[in-house]
Amino acid sequence: MSSLTLLEQLQPDRSAAVPLTRQLAAGLRSLSASGQLPAGAQLPPTRQLAAALGISRGTVTEVFETLCAEGYLEAQVGAGTFVRALPAAGRDRGRPSARAQALAQLPVLASPSTQGGPPRPLRHSQPDARLFPWKTWARLEAQASWAPARRSSAAGWPPLREQVAAYLRRERGLDCQPEQVIITTGSQQALDLAARTLLDQEEQVALESPGYPGTRAAMLGAGLRPLALPVDEAGLDPAALWRQPRLRMVGVTPAHQFPTGVSLSPGRRLELLRWAEEQGGWILEDDYDSEYRYAGPPLTPLQALSDRVIHLGTFSAFLFSGLRLGFLVVPLHLAGTFTAVKQAMDGGSSLHDSATLARFMAEGHFTRHLARTRRIYAARHDFLLAQVQALGATVPAPGRGLHLTAYWPSRQQAQVLRQAPGLGLDLTPVQAFQWGRQTNVPGLLLGFAASTPGELQEALGRLALALSSAR
Amino acid sequence: MSSLTLLEQLQPDRSAAVPLTRQLAAGLRSLSASGQLPAGAQLPPTRQLAAALGISRGTVTEVFETLCAEGYLEAQVGAGTFVRALPAAGRDRGRPSARAQALAQLPVLASPSTQGGPPRPLRHSQPDARLFPWKTWARLEAQASWAPARRSSAAGWPPLREQVAAYLRRERGLDCQPEQVIITTGSQQALDLAARTLLDQEEQVALESPGYPGTRAAMLGAGLRPLALPVDEAGLDPAALWRQPRLRMVGVTPAHQFPTGVSLSPGRRLELLRWAEEQGGWILEDDYDSEYRYAGPPLTPLQALSDRVIHLGTFSAFLFSGLRLGFLVVPLHLAGTFTAVKQAMDGGSSLHDSATLARFMAEGHFTRHLARTRRIYAARHDFLLAQVQALGATVPAPGRGLHLTAYWPSRQQAQVLRQAPGLGLDLTPVQAFQWGRQTNVPGLLLGFAASTPGELQEALGRLALALSSAR
Repeated sequence: MSSLTLLEQLQPDRSAAVPLTRQLAAGLRSLSASGQLPAGAQLPPTRQLAAALGISRGTVTEVFETLCAEGYLEAQVGAGTFVRALPAAGRDRGRPSARAQALAQLPVLASPSTQGGPPRPLRHSQPDARLFPWKTWARLEAQASWAPARRSSAAGWPPLREQVAAYLRRERGLDCQPEQVIITTGSQQALDLAARTLLDQEEQVALESPGYPGTRAAMLGAGLRPLALPVDEAGLDPAALWRQPRLRMVGVTPAHQFPTGVSLSPGRRLELLRWAEEQGGWILEDDYDSEYRYAGPPLTPLQALSDRVIHLGTFSAFLFSGLRLGFLVVPLHLAGTFTAVKQAMDGGSSLHDSATLARFMAEGHFTRHLARTRRIYAARHDFLLAQVQALGATVPAPGRGLHLTAYWPSRQQAQVLRQAPGLGLDLTPVQAFQWGRQTNVPGLLLGFAASTPGELQEALGRLALALSSAR
Repeated sequence: MSSLTLLEQLQPDRSAAVPLTRQLAAGLRSLSASGQLPAGAQLPPTRQLAAALGISRGTVTEVFETLCAEGYLEAQVGAGTFVRALPAAGRDRGRPSARAQALAQLPVLASPSTQGGPPRPLRHSQPDARLFPWKTWARLEAQASWAPARRSSAAGWPPLREQVAAYLRRERGLDCQPEQVIITTGSQQALDLAARTLLDQEEQVALESPGYPGTRAAMLGAGLRPLALPVDEAGLDPAALWRQPRLRMVGVTPAHQFPTGVSLSPGRRLELLRWAEEQGGWILEDDYDSEYRYAGPPLTPLQALSDRVIHLGTFSAFLFSGLRLGFLVVPLHLAGTFTAVKQAMDGGSSLHDSATLARFMAEGHFTRHLARTRRIYAARHDFLLAQVQALGATVPAPGRGLHLTAYWPSRQQAQVLRQAPGLGLDLTPVQAFQWGRQTNVPGLLLGFAASTPGELQEALGRLALALSSAR
């Protein structure tokens, strides 16, 4: 078949919205890709093809020029236009990096923003979205002006850095300046930023096991291989740190260990700080739900004690899960370096979200929302604690956060977990957060913040059913 | 001085907003930190201290408990409460990672969002913020509902992924599905995401020189050491690629090389694709201002030709610089892996910004804004081109983007650059984007998009002054 006969198939559709040039170009590309127009084939002169297709010669010329520029066709002076050989697809479909493969194999991290749907009773780590002042937020969103003319930096929207520093000074006893606050896209990015700013590839990071899977994912994503540190009733055990010469960072949730809920004991706090000071290590302190404390003493963050501590916080955990903003508090002499790395990572987090949150804080809504939810969550905490104790559970570390970690005898726990899906319960065992070489740890996470006592009562009725059948 | 005498200094300020417990705790911590209360010192009994300070014994007990939990104090049964030894600060203030040090030493990347102020005539890479439909955007921001109940994923807000795929199919001839689109926080994060998903630490990436400094920063941030590939009038020269056995990725701006403005020649397009297919390499195609084409054929992205190409785009470049949203188009079989890495990086970009942009596109404002600015920028392009040619410049690759790259004899260019600051002109030489071992390259970037012909005329008058004094 001559190329003219073949190309006559490319009759344009004059009723289509797509311009004639694009239709013809797409047709020629597809004839070339399918091999019907093989490499080396000569195309008919533009005048001839234009006549055959009933379009202007200018259109055909424009298409030929485009395909020449793209590499499909080649114009040879005095000879005509020819189909070029496109490189054949290699056999290798393309292997991603080792770190990407490791991350793709992690169990899916159900981040709060991926869950959707109404709050599920007993699901851990969920604030009650119904308590959030949505109307106020929407009003501020409409008003939030981050005036494109105003200067910002990759470290974050200046008014938000000021509000966060003021909040940390007031509520957490941290003596920090706005210049030390780096705004991030959620705590997840804060972990990534800290790892990449402080650790080289060949250095090691140690993390709690059981622990928050997002921390492990962030470290894998930063190209590090995390080492598992066991957690007991006094928090993570720092004894093993001294035996790791390449260890440069420890990730820890000292105020309220995730998921067990224990606080790092005073002795271990000091031991951890001593390791960091003596070995030139870093402590990455995740203060993830320090805002909620219903009993026991308020603990000053480790960062108040040492410049070797990077302090990390988030807003999504207690405002609403779709708000992807978090922060790091870093030593002043490293603020510029953190900013340079953040600049290379994404140039800065959402200015509009930042401006909205800065006004939400400046106008006092933040403090009011915190005070209100603290009161309401405290009642829910006390209610759930009494109820699960009445159901025979031990709760060794209550009094903080958005969930309780409850312990039943292992046969009962196994039975409850088996029956939970059938009973419409969304329960997570501590074991789901375990990694490394540790033996199975017991315990169930029971979220209380997102449910009213009535809703908790109803869910507990189903839990009791599962428990009783296990006796 | 007995510890009671010392502690009597800590008289609380009853008029202060700070609670008594916090005042006392802060006082004790500071006496301990200053060494006035040395390690081992015994504290007075709570009853005695409470009486001395005129506060309740319960308050003192609560403070002692907090400081015990924090590690400052230690209660010894039957003996009393003692000051513990805090670890001494190490001599090492803390060295950041090698990559962070490298990034901190790069010349500051003036990202559009950091610049602030009104548009500066002749400054490159600036859209005209005055043309943006701010009222429409503000209305959509107020309305944009990303309903917390709706399911999203780290790959991005689903309606935005759909809009981007439809736009790329319609405007760029890319046959892509929404599942292949990964929404990122600007093109900067897209570069980081691609590097970390595809390359291992020991592998190499090659980038254009002169080239966009943000690309180099992203690669350094991902722990890679970029190799400089020289650019000539036909774009980057792929000849060197075959001599690099560990090379796995090439970053390229094929449609409109930054900063020279040249298009990658058809032969080199094919050569680059052939390298990728044969060597199992990746091409990272930055399509940064493909939306603006005033002359010459429209070029289909390289990604339309091969699954070895990762396509990268941004919205901040042509909507407004504070909108930090970009995207990657990835091969379908790797979409899950890219999503897992993005999840580990930050869990997903701003949902509110994404929802606003999705509606802006769905309601047709995007297409209208593009059509309008294309028309206006084309006139500014033509005006500037004629004027600088009249001033003796050569402009070998006009017709695209937001700036022209103009060449004057080197003595004249040097003179212009010396006088520019004094004349209030913000000019950037191509040389500023040069790195690696290349010899000095000539050329000046002249932005035209952000200025009216009148503003351009005025700035050109000053440029002519500098030029004439160089003759």
